[in-house]
Amino acid sequence: MKEISNLIAYRPDVKVVDATLRDGGLVNDFYFTDEFVKALYLANLRAGVDYMEFGYKASKEMFDEDKFGKWKFCRDEHIREIVGENATDLKIAIMADVGRCDKADIIDRADSPIDLIRVATYVNTIPGAVDMIEDAAKKGYEVSCNIMAISHTQEGELKAALDILGKTPVDVLYIVDSYGSMYPEQVARLADTYLEFAAKYNKKVGIHAHNNQQLAFANTIEAVGDGVDWLDATYASMGRGAGNCAMELLLGFLRNPKYNVYPAICFVEKYMNQLKADGVVWGYDLQYLMTGLLNQHPRAAIQFTKEKRTDYAEFYKEIVAQD
Amino acid sequence: MKEISNLIAYRPDVKVVDATLRDGGLVNDFYFTDEFVKALYLANLRAGVDYMEFGYKASKEMFDEDKFGKWKFCRDEHIREIVGENATDLKIAIMADVGRCDKADIIDRADSPIDLIRVATYVNTIPGAVDMIEDAAKKGYEVSCNIMAISHTQEGELKAALDILGKTPVDVLYIVDSYGSMYPEQVARLADTYLEFAAKYNKKVGIHAHNNQQLAFANTIEAVGDGVDWLDATYASMGRGAGNCAMELLLGFLRNPKYNVYPAICFVEKYMNQLKADGVVWGYDLQYLMTGLLNQHPRAAIQFTKEKRTDYAEFYKEIVAQD
Repeated sequence: MKEISNLIAYRPDVKVVDATLRDGGLVNDFYFTDEFVKALYLANLRAGVDYMEFGYKASKEMFDEDKFGKWKFCRDEHIREIVGENATDLKIAIMADVGRCDKADIIDRADSPIDLIRVATYVNTIPGAVDMIEDAAKKGYEVSCNIMAISHTQEGELKAALDILGKTPVDVLYIVDSYGSMYPEQVARLADTYLEFAAKYNKKVGIHAHNNQQLAFANTIEAVGDGVDWLDATYASMGRGAGNCAMELLLGFLRNPKYNVYPAICFVEKYMNQLKADGVVWGYDLQYLMTGLLNQHPRAAIQFTKEKRTDYAEFYKEIVAQD
Repeated sequence: MKEISNLIAYRPDVKVVDATLRDGGLVNDFYFTDEFVKALYLANLRAGVDYMEFGYKASKEMFDEDKFGKWKFCRDEHIREIVGENATDLKIAIMADVGRCDKADIIDRADSPIDLIRVATYVNTIPGAVDMIEDAAKKGYEVSCNIMAISHTQEGELKAALDILGKTPVDVLYIVDSYGSMYPEQVARLADTYLEFAAKYNKKVGIHAHNNQQLAFANTIEAVGDGVDWLDATYASMGRGAGNCAMELLLGFLRNPKYNVYPAICFVEKYMNQLKADGVVWGYDLQYLMTGLLNQHPRAAIQFTKEKRTDYAEFYKEIVAQD
C-alpha cells in the first residue's frame, strides 16, 4: 500500500506535460487557430504546467504541408509567433517520430524556442531513436523517449530497449499505453521495470496514458505513486481515439502548490467545449473500450467513429473476428 | 504490488451487482418502461451478473407514488411482472434507506421474489440500520449494508460502525464513495479496514463507486485486487450525477468465464443510448469533477446540470466559496 504522506504532500520532481496540440492534433489534423494556441499557452502558464508540446516536427518530404495544420510541422517561426522569446518557466516541447522526421529540421537549441525533443519510437526502431536522441542532445536539447505500443512488446525486448536507451543522453524514458489496454496494476509493474533502468542510468521516467477504459487518469496517478515523475495530460482529454489523461483531473490531484486547476477549468469551458461544439470528436466510447480490452490498435475504432456508426455490437464481432 | 496471477486468474467469490435501475433511477425519477426493465433482466442473465437491484423500497407515506416511477417503491407484484418466479441464477435485490423505508413493506422472503435487502445508512443512523438488518435477516433475506458518505466520516467512527455491523446478521459491508472523491490508494486503505472487520465477523466486503473523477472503474478494480468481492456497476455508468462504475468496463475486466461483456454491449447500444437520446442526462462532466475534488455532496453539480449551465469556472468559484 502506498504511503499516505505521498498523497498529502508532493514530490518536487513531478513535471506536467501538456500534450493537447500534439495528441489532440491527431484528431483535427492539427488545425488549431492561433487564438486557441495562444490561449492554451497562457492557460498552461497560469496552471503551472511545466512543458507544452506544440506538435510534431514531421518530415515535409513525407507529409504534405497543405493537408495539415502547421502544428504537424512545428516550424520554429510559428512557435515564436505564439511565445515570442518565451521568457517564462514554461518549456516548449515537440515530438519527433523515428522515421517520420528529418533531423535537419531540428536546429541548435540556442537558435530555437524549443527546449525538449520528445523522440517517439517502437521497440523495433530503437537504433533510429538512439540516433535522434544523440543528435538532439548534441544540439543542446533536453530529450525524452516514448517507447510506443509496449503492450505488444515482450518484456525481454523492452528491457533490452531500456538498457540501450539508458546508455544514451536521453533524460526521460516514457511508459506509453498506446492502446489504452493497461490496468493500474500493470502500470505499477512496468513502472517498476522502467524505474530500475532509470536508477541504473540516472534517468527520469514518464507516462503517457490513453482513456480507452477510462483509466488514463487512474493509470497516471498510479504511476505517480510508484515514482514516475513526468506526466502527460491534455485538456478535456483531447487526443487520438479515446483521448488522454485529462489535465483538469491531474492538476486537481497534484498537491504541489505551483499547480492550479482553475485556469484549466476556464480553458476547457471556453476553448475545449467550443472545439466539441464545432464537431471535433474524441473521447471515451464503447468502440475504444473494445479495442483497449482486446489490446488492439485503435484504428478500427477511429474508423467506426469517423463513419458515425453506433452499431457497437456489430463492431465487437468484427474486431473479435480479426483478433 | 499485486500478484500477477490475480489479474490472469479469477476469484470465484466475486459477485457483480447491477444497480442500473436503483442508482440510475435517481436520474429519471425511476420512470423506466417495462420493456427496458425486461431487457435489462435478460441482459443481466446473459452477462452472468449475480444480482439485479430493482430500485428502492421507499416509504409510500413519505413519497408520493404519483411523482415517481414504480421502481422507487419496488412492489413485489411489479417485480413479479418482470421476472415471474425468477427460476434463474440471477438474484433480485432492492435498496432500503434507513429512515425512508417502512419495514412492513418487506414481507417474508418465502413470499417475495426478492433475495437481497440492501440497507443504506449514514454513520449517524447505524442503530436504525441494525434494526432493519435484523428485521430483514429474520424474514429470511440476504442482507448487505451500504455506509454512505464515508469520505465525510472520521476513521474512529467508521471503525465503531463496522464493529457494530459486524455483530449483526448482515452478510456484506459496502464501501461507498458517495461523493466520487476517493483515489484508488484511499480505496486500498479503506478496503484494508473493512476487510479487517469482515475477517473478524465472517462478512464479505463490497464497493459502490462514483465517477466524478473518472475513477469509478479504477476504484472498483483496485478494490477487487485488494480482496473486495461484491462489485456494483451500472450499464453505461447510469447513476446519480457522474454515475457509477460501467458494467461494460467491469465485465471486460473480470476473468471469471461466467461473465460475458457482449450482452452488456448489446444492451448499452440498444437501450442506454436511447435513454441518452431521449434526454436523460448523467455522467462525468466538469461540475462533478469539482464537487468530487472538493469532497462535496454532488447536489450543487446536479442542479448545475439541470439548469443546463456551462459556466464551469463560475460554478467552481461558487462551490469553493461555500466550502
